[in-house]
Amino acid sequence: MRLAIMGAGAVGASVAELASAYGHEVTAIADSNSAAIDPNGLDTEAALATKRASGTVGDDSPESVLEAEYDVLVEATPTTLGDAEPGYSHTVSALERDRHVVLANKGPIAERYDEVRAHERNSEGRVSFDATVGGAIPVLTTIDDIGRSNVTAVRGVLNGTANFILSRMAAESLDYEHVLAEAQDLGVAEADPTFDVDGTDAALKCVILANVLFGGGYALSDAAVEGIREIPGAALQLAAEDGQTIRLIGEVVDEEIRVGPRLVPETGTLAVSGTQNIVQLQTERAGRLNISGRGAGGDETATAVLGDINRLL
Amino acid sequence: MRLAIMGAGAVGASVAELASAYGHEVTAIADSNSAAIDPNGLDTEAALATKRASGTVGDDSPESVLEAEYDVLVEATPTTLGDAEPGYSHTVSALERDRHVVLANKGPIAERYDEVRAHERNSEGRVSFDATVGGAIPVLTTIDDIGRSNVTAVRGVLNGTANFILSRMAAESLDYEHVLAEAQDLGVAEADPTFDVDGTDAALKCVILANVLFGGGYALSDAAVEGIREIPGAALQLAAEDGQTIRLIGEVVDEEIRVGPRLVPETGTLAVSGTQNIVQLQTERAGRLNISGRGAGGDETATAVLGDINRLL
Repeated sequence: MRLAIMGAGAVGASVAELASAYGHEVTAIADSNSAAIDPNGLDTEAALATKRASGTVGDDSPESVLEAEYDVLVEATPTTLGDAEPGYSHTVSALERDRHVVLANKGPIAERYDEVRAHERNSEGRVSFDATVGGAIPVLTTIDDIGRSNVTAVRGVLNGTANFILSRMAAESLDYEHVLAEAQDLGVAEADPTFDVDGTDAALKCVILANVLFGGGYALSDAAVEGIREIPGAALQLAAEDGQTIRLIGEVVDEEIRVGPRLVPETGTLAVSGTQNIVQLQTERAGRLNISGRGAGGDETATAVLGDINRLL
Repeated sequence: MRLAIMGAGAVGASVAELASAYGHEVTAIADSNSAAIDPNGLDTEAALATKRASGTVGDDSPESVLEAEYDVLVEATPTTLGDAEPGYSHTVSALERDRHVVLANKGPIAERYDEVRAHERNSEGRVSFDATVGGAIPVLTTIDDIGRSNVTAVRGVLNGTANFILSRMAAESLDYEHVLAEAQDLGVAEADPTFDVDGTDAALKCVILANVLFGGGYALSDAAVEGIREIPGAALQLAAEDGQTIRLIGEVVDEEIRVGPRLVPETGTLAVSGTQNIVQLQTERAGRLNISGRGAGGDETATAVLGDINRLL
């Protein structure tokens, strides 16, 4: 397949680097203010080297990628809330040209799911987005595998940054601010960690899960969200005295979406440590299914994107 | 789809009971010495009631099911070693009639994988067997999802009976014989537990994984297998003093298959408790993926069978 990649951050760059190993060709890649396009197959290494050296991947404009030759648009621009732009317009543009779209960007399918699906119905192209929930963990394809109607509830740890902070607070008896600084030093938390620590990122993933499970109708405003900023270190120590710990749990239960700190057993399935993610699928007749692994990272998320692309074939 | 079900034990009966909820119709079901057939759709409740009352599902012979009207043969007769009969012949018969086969029976694809695939290549029918590894855990479909060539090793707890026994021995400081008797009382272990406690069942699952990952060539004789009968209760107590416990671990690593008791961290991912199963997939670029859940049970395995059937559509 010929791939056009919108976004040259960790995920976009990793998709570009791994594409040929999966038998695909990159014909275009854009960052926020430039693009490199070659209908005969781009030298992605050169484009990414140009970006490292000069800050831009090439001499074209990002928008020109939308008019380039490609079979699949990989939408890996940053997640935005509300109108989910520019990811939403990129998605619509590809569908209007009867091209497939594979999203790593959560915005369009969290905030404008019904509109995206409506455009998909009028297109020869299809929309896939396994990379948006759980990174390397194939949450959405597993739900497909076992059948959406067989899943009665979803619950899990869906943000690695928040989980790292809570794990470290518990293990080292440290305060939130102290551990956040450490996480930022390690590159686990961003300079502005709001999306992660306020629960927004986990909530967007839950919204996507709800849209998939119930056929649409949900946006971030439908989620009850509480973050981890206000948790005192002492709360984790009190929990530990009782064999418990605190995790930021997202859940889709009874058609409601909730994200917030919850007490969980210290040695229980949900108490994954570090940046791990875990998703529990409660099923109709087959009990509870747990899937855990790396929930973020360029290569991990790119692997999920490339899995989606292979399933389009 | 019209289903013919060979085998009316826990799995076969559960497939028969759940089929209509998944939009399918059962046209035939056989136990080891009888069958009930109706090309217009069988009253499966009546057939299973007949079996409970009289020990047979109907007046036809089991073999006559192979000639009945159906789209998918569900092979749920007991797993046998060596020639894997009668499951193997049932599978071949269906493929020769250009029908699909969904197996819950591990024998044919553990012991005669290459022959089954050769028959499949000459058939319009396809062979699926997600139910054979991990029960309700979609291990094989997950491997498909992430791509076989991306999986570098598989390791896991693949037998719920052995895991129950080891969990109880550790938790209650009891001996093997004592816990085995308890497991038999609870219906967790069979009267003859050999397959489970000697590691054969876990080894067959590993052989199936190796066949899937490496395109065939493996049978039970290629596996190095050690069971749990000889583990003294004292070994579990010694392990616990060091924060460890013992689990029966199956692994497919470097094209080798090994099953045996291994020391694992007491609070680690592999130390699932009770009858739970867990499978760890080591991936090329996306770290380790863990999937856990109920590895056995009639409804659980039937759910996996019905998932395979839905994917045939």
